[in-house]
Amino acid sequence: MMKYKRGLFVGRFQPFHNGHLFAIEYALERSEFLYIGLGSSNKSHEERNPFTAAERIEMIKAALDDRGVDPRKWMIIPIPDTTSHFLWTKMVKMIVPKFDVVFSNDPLTLRLFVEEGIETIEVPLREREKLMATEIRNRMINGLPWQDFVPKSVGRLIKKFDGEERMRKINRM
Amino acid sequence: MMKYKRGLFVGRFQPFHNGHLFAIEYALERSEFLYIGLGSSNKSHEERNPFTAAERIEMIKAALDDRGVDPRKWMIIPIPDTTSHFLWTKMVKMIVPKFDVVFSNDPLTLRLFVEEGIETIEVPLREREKLMATEIRNRMINGLPWQDFVPKSVGRLIKKFDGEERMRKINRM
Amino acid sequence: MMKYKRGLFVGRFQPFHNGHLFAIEYALERSEFLYIGLGSSNKSHEERNPFTAAERIEMIKAALDDRGVDPRKWMIIPIPDTTSHFLWTKMVKMIVPKFDVVFSNDPLTLRLFVEEGIETIEVPLREREKLMATEIRNRMINGLPWQDFVPKSVGRLIKKFDGEERMRKINRM
Amino acid sequence: MMKYKRGLFVGRFQPFHNGHLFAIEYALERSEFLYIGLGSSNKSHEERNPFTAAERIEMIKAALDDRGVDPRKWMIIPIPDTTSHFLWTKMVKMIVPKFDVVFSNDPLTLRLFVEEGIETIEVPLREREKLMATEIRNRMINGLPWQDFVPKSVGRLIKKFDGEERMRKINRM
Amino acid sequence: MMKYKRGLFVGRFQPFHNGHLFAIEYALERSEFLYIGLGSSNKSHEERNPFTAAERIEMIKAALDDRGVDPRKWMIIPIPDTTSHFLWTKMVKMIVPKFDVVFSNDPLTLRLFVEEGIETIEVPLREREKLMATEIRNRMINGLPWQDFVPKSVGRLIKKFDGEERMRKINRM
Amino acid sequence: MMKYKRGLFVGRFQPFHNGHLFAIEYALERSEFLYIGLGSSNKSHEERNPFTAAERIEMIKAALDDRGVDPRKWMIIPIPDTTSHFLWTKMVKMIVPKFDVVFSNDPLTLRLFVEEGIETIEVPLREREKLMATEIRNRMINGLPWQDFVPKSVGRLIKKFDGEERMRKINRM
Repeated sequence: MMKYKRGLFVGRFQPFHNGHLFAIEYALERSEFLYIGLGSSNKSHEERNPFTAAERIEMIKAALDDRGVDPRKWMIIPIPDTTSHFLWTKMVKMIVPKFDVVFSNDPLTLRLFVEEGIETIEVPLREREKLMATEIRNRMINGLPWQDFVPKSVGRLIKKFDGEERMRKINRM
Repeated sequence: MMKYKRGLFVGRFQPFHNGHLFAIEYALERSEFLYIGLGSSNKSHEERNPFTAAERIEMIKAALDDRGVDPRKWMIIPIPDTTSHFLWTKMVKMIVPKFDVVFSNDPLTLRLFVEEGIETIEVPLREREKLMATEIRNRMINGLPWQDFVPKSVGRLIKKFDGEERMRKINRM
Repeated sequence: MMKYKRGLFVGRFQPFHNGHLFAIEYALERSEFLYIGLGSSNKSHEERNPFTAAERIEMIKAALDDRGVDPRKWMIIPIPDTTSHFLWTKMVKMIVPKFDVVFSNDPLTLRLFVEEGIETIEVPLREREKLMATEIRNRMINGLPWQDFVPKSVGRLIKKFDGEERMRKINRM
Repeated sequence: MMKYKRGLFVGRFQPFHNGHLFAIEYALERSEFLYIGLGSSNKSHEERNPFTAAERIEMIKAALDDRGVDPRKWMIIPIPDTTSHFLWTKMVKMIVPKFDVVFSNDPLTLRLFVEEGIETIEVPLREREKLMATEIRNRMINGLPWQDFVPKSVGRLIKKFDGEERMRKINRM
Repeated sequence: MMKYKRGLFVGRFQPFHNGHLFAIEYALERSEFLYIGLGSSNKSHEERNPFTAAERIEMIKAALDDRGVDPRKWMIIPIPDTTSHFLWTKMVKMIVPKFDVVFSNDPLTLRLFVEEGIETIEVPLREREKLMATEIRNRMINGLPWQDFVPKSVGRLIKKFDGEERMRKINRM
Repeated sequence: MMKYKRGLFVGRFQPFHNGHLFAIEYALERSEFLYIGLGSSNKSHEERNPFTAAERIEMIKAALDDRGVDPRKWMIIPIPDTTSHFLWTKMVKMIVPKFDVVFSNDPLTLRLFVEEGIETIEVPLREREKLMATEIRNRMINGLPWQDFVPKSVGRLIKKFDGEERMRKINRM
């Protein structure tokens, strides 16, 4: 397979789940080096963004280390939101070193880079995997099992962060 | 008809439609000069604000030029949002030169200026025309015809901006 | 009853109602001095935050003065929102002098302080009293009576601020 | 002496000094009730703003309590900065309940309220007293005595906050 | 002379002076249509930005009308500052409709567009004309004559805005 | 030498120089894992912050790779500024996973963590090395040699970014 020199995968990882792991491995196979953009890094403790950037960095690192992914091949870069989505791609260029292709499964992310004339690749996920983060958060709130949707090491971290309790408190606000 | 010296019409123009055209002509008949305040100018590529200020300026200018409105009689001024609506009228005064009256069909806009003791005129639109922008955005998402709700020149611009595709991507986010 | 030296009670007071009065008196009984943190002080004229901080300060002061609460025992401190809730507790420490305990009936507020290792006390309100502010705002919009939910002096202030009309305009936006 | 109903005194209090005490007593003599606006409440740990709002509130309260000023006659209200000074007077109105007159010795503060048509009174301070805060901060940096410029209780608080050390670290940045 | 279709001239106009008039006419000769970007539109009442965007719009319009410039050939667009200059060119593209060339005499403005691969033209001003705004502001503060540096209509507006007094108050802050 | 589990080194790296390299190696010797916090990541193209976060990440990575530092031992994390320095340590905790010690040679950075009760270590640099970034930027502006102050790979990157020209344009603004 022909490889891109430097790829960028963007996600919010709220929390990091098996769909993310598949997507990152998909992107890693197609890139010599992969930047993992951690979106909405300035958000936390709210319904759609329960975990801090620090916690999400730990999740990603634990999952990739467990999987034995070579640490010389990737780098996590937190990316804060911008007031207007139109400014966001420029914000990304300000923080992430030069990249040749963007991997994502979020339609708006892909669209924003397309409008900039940047090459994009939609990671082939089933609808269910795309919506996994929402599903997991709802299960946490309702006390249903969610551990099978995430790598084992991520499950342990969420437990350490007392993530279920936090989700429930946020939801009752 | 007695005329105000300088009127201000405020709208978000997401997108510019026939109701806006009627309202601006209504305001122009009652003002020697009209400032057209482009609200939420700092927002774009989101559900309620799909178009950039730049794109909306092109829409307004094209529609008024097509209509043969004298360019010496109006000026577009982009107005960004403020954290609190209470600060917004002051923000308007910071950016828009002195005006004598505010035209709008948005209840909150009118209310905010009333609380400041500024004269306001509610443009007489039917409920349907007030909600036209929402209707157009929904039709774009669902692939229904929307071109009859906007001036012809605006329809061409939205096509040039690939507006339908953008709306659909934003909606699937 | 053993008393804390300095307590902090946090609320948004949109508007100030009988549940707030009960909670503040509950906190005052347990504190030698009480800081009353006025949350979302930077918000106004929107659905969940119709009143300015200035108006809310008047409401609190009027209610406590009417009740004959000793003015040497409490102080109101407006606290603006932060981008991330995670930063909010630190913002509170930046504006509110040293306190020993936090009183609240908002689950997220309590949770945020718990994560910081700060002592918290949940004020024992019935569910109905917790949701009173939402109920009052809905009644204002729908023209139903709401005056019995607030102290008399607060009812007079809301009338002076023309609060019902403002709520209706915000709601029709 | 004829008294205003509600006065507003604005200062940054970095730190609170004898000039501030004189000015507040001057304003209290002319007002039935005095709001003490704590400017730049969102700034701290920088050269011109070394102390947090929380620390400055403690200073003001300690100084006025020591002086025996009636706590029913005044209220401290923190006021954050705005991007543009033009918006600042509106921000003040959003947070401070209705006032009839503004006391200050800062030319720009007075000017901003004059442009709004609000009555202002320049507190008659000697040039030296106006510049006292700058003088105190410089003395802290250079290890010179500064305690005589501030009320005794404020001196104790600054010592408790380890203010001299903080000033020196900020300055060496 | 070959003409660009749509040019953009950017300045802060604090205040609008004869150098600006020369530069705009220079750009108008080379463009079928000219966008006049009003920089730092979110700033006012500070040393380097004493006038509001509203006041600066009045200045530009008065000067161009006096000069008899065809109103169909230009449009003023206020542009707020961004946190990072790197994001600023994208902000410009968000607010200003498509342009082919940028005219300016500010080295950083030109540099930022060069880094984006956009064509730029440095307006040939003498050093003195580039620094005219600073010179005028200093003269206002020191009570020296400055009227010869600005178009007559602008001089009248600055007088109407009481600009000299404002400059002096800002400077004494 | 006893090692900390997770250290944090904070710098702005404008640009990355030999003093930074020494400090990072000093911190790496004392930590099993080192987070390299890239301060003022939201700033660029200004006098004290000429380079984007993206460019600075490239510099750090190139220098450490050249030096043969094990990529499993460190991670770069961009940290944006906060309005108040008081909030900054909390922002750091929001983005950087748990750390046991902070290395820095900036007095304010160290002071802020000391006030939080976090262990700090001042890296033993000579005064000249602490001020190296300022020196390099001044040399770039004045066309003097600066390459000996930075690792070779960083020199090449600055040339690729056309850093000297950018510095000169920023300076002439």
